[in-house]
Amino acid sequence: MAQTPVNNHQLAEFPVVISLPVIWGDMDAFQHVNNTVYVRWFESSRVAFVEQADIRPFLQERHLGPILASVTCNFKRQLRFPDTVHIGARVANLGRSSMTLDHVVYSETLGQVAADGSSIVVLFDYQSQRPVRIPQEMLAAIERLQGSLPAGP
Amino acid sequence: MAQTPVNNHQLAEFPVVISLPVIWGDMDAFQHVNNTVYVRWFESSRVAFVEQADIRPFLQERHLGPILASVTCNFKRQLRFPDTVHIGARVANLGRSSMTLDHVVYSETLGQVAADGSSIVVLFDYQSQRPVRIPQEMLAAIERLQGSLPAGP
Amino acid sequence: MAQTPVNNHQLAEFPVVISLPVIWGDMDAFQHVNNTVYVRWFESSRVAFVEQADIRPFLQERHLGPILASVTCNFKRQLRFPDTVHIGARVANLGRSSMTLDHVVYSETLGQVAADGSSIVVLFDYQSQRPVRIPQEMLAAIERLQGSLPAGP
Amino acid sequence: MAQTPVNNHQLAEFPVVISLPVIWGDMDAFQHVNNTVYVRWFESSRVAFVEQADIRPFLQERHLGPILASVTCNFKRQLRFPDTVHIGARVANLGRSSMTLDHVVYSETLGQVAADGSSIVVLFDYQSQRPVRIPQEMLAAIERLQGSLPAGP
Repeated sequence: MAQTPVNNHQLAEFPVVISLPVIWGDMDAFQHVNNTVYVRWFESSRVAFVEQADIRPFLQERHLGPILASVTCNFKRQLRFPDTVHIGARVANLGRSSMTLDHVVYSETLGQVAADGSSIVVLFDYQSQRPVRIPQEMLAAIERLQGSLPAGP
Repeated sequence: MAQTPVNNHQLAEFPVVISLPVIWGDMDAFQHVNNTVYVRWFESSRVAFVEQADIRPFLQERHLGPILASVTCNFKRQLRFPDTVHIGARVANLGRSSMTLDHVVYSETLGQVAADGSSIVVLFDYQSQRPVRIPQEMLAAIERLQGSLPAGP
Repeated sequence: MAQTPVNNHQLAEFPVVISLPVIWGDMDAFQHVNNTVYVRWFESSRVAFVEQADIRPFLQERHLGPILASVTCNFKRQLRFPDTVHIGARVANLGRSSMTLDHVVYSETLGQVAADGSSIVVLFDYQSQRPVRIPQEMLAAIERLQGSLPAGP
Repeated sequence: MAQTPVNNHQLAEFPVVISLPVIWGDMDAFQHVNNTVYVRWFESSRVAFVEQADIRPFLQERHLGPILASVTCNFKRQLRFPDTVHIGARVANLGRSSMTLDHVVYSETLGQVAADGSSIVVLFDYQSQRPVRIPQEMLAAIERLQGSLPAGP
């Protein structure tokens, strides 16, 4: 899941891009990649965002963790095995205790965006079982990774 | 996947309700049901809608089929094995060649709605590879199943 | 995942039988149920065996848990949506720290066994990170569930 | 899924080796890679074998296709995200209408074999719905890919 070598302007806007192979088993009875696989790709890109922002130790120390509140995927192109997809993730909106990540899926075989979408993630304190305000350190880590922060609440 | 025996007012609004067991393998490393499983449940409820509206033969004859254009899932409750979920589906909006289905996921263990969301489905002619206007026969079948039709475009 | 109502002599030999619906998404590009789904069904039947033998509290207290050492599945019939499968599990062989479970998958639509196979499970002490001898209490629980024990080592 | 750069003597015996990333979602509630994922990896390596032996067009022309008759996986090491696995496949035994493929899964993070196993595949005539003798052209293609053939029946 190395950074993609693909030089595409739609991916260029994303600070985090992972590359995953389409496998034969990703296809369903319609003989194209099943819709749940795209949602799994979004998940992998969120995990990569946390890794690359280097905030996991910070979160674990404070018993904080992200919880997925909502996900939307817009399907633009059917995909088939074999292919390699490049999945981008970036923070597009910041709330008090939540943030919206935008995703894009670029197909190497098609040379086109196959899907886009977004995830709303809430920062959760697992001890108090309540959402918490996103700490300044976390905002700083996102800004380091993205170069800038989206306008906050 | 029989009709649910659950008598819940939130499910009562849905003409199609299927019941599926949560299995141990639906859980991820967070030890709750993974987000992609909810999206798979939505898929199963869409398939059940087509079956119960009895429109598959009509569609196949005309080489028409639904394509998923978009899916959104709002996660309200974490789920764990063991549980049984009841998933509702209904047509909420009608366009010229597309329709929006609303979904709800009701957890028997929690006695609560665990998620809701929607799917946008486009009716597609696989011979011409173009979206087509939803035929009158299909609207009639949806009306038979739901009792009424949502306001059209 | 209630006990199956199916009265079949091949299932009758199994003390634990769970029933699961085949869902549309279980099918792959060959338009039959994918091979990994059968292996997932075996897993669900192993989990049900532990639940029904009522040994989970005993294991957790001692920091013991089963680890899967090997799984074999023999595919006898292709399956398709819609269908309901009944999956049996029983302990067929006992070793010092391991046991072999036999599995069978019976298709309601076909009225036939669709697959059989077996799992080798090792009892593991998660503190010492070593296999441990199966305790007498666990053997007694298996005997209660099965009516008798297979010949031991 | 390029040929692996890993220079490992256990992989060196395999004419076909594919490389796949472990993703976060491959892990289950035990926080290690779920057993069904290994079986999916075997499937991907079988698909790669058919591609690299370049026999798909030959098979499609004659309406022949492989059907999985049996799969066995021996789990040797627990795997976790992040990791990359290299999965080998080779024909180990030839029957009249069936063949046994051996598989190995090598973990880059562990520097060790994490699993091995085998698949029995039957060559099937989809028109007559019967197993057929493996044609000479297919044996020749396997020999080209492997350098030699295992002893036949």
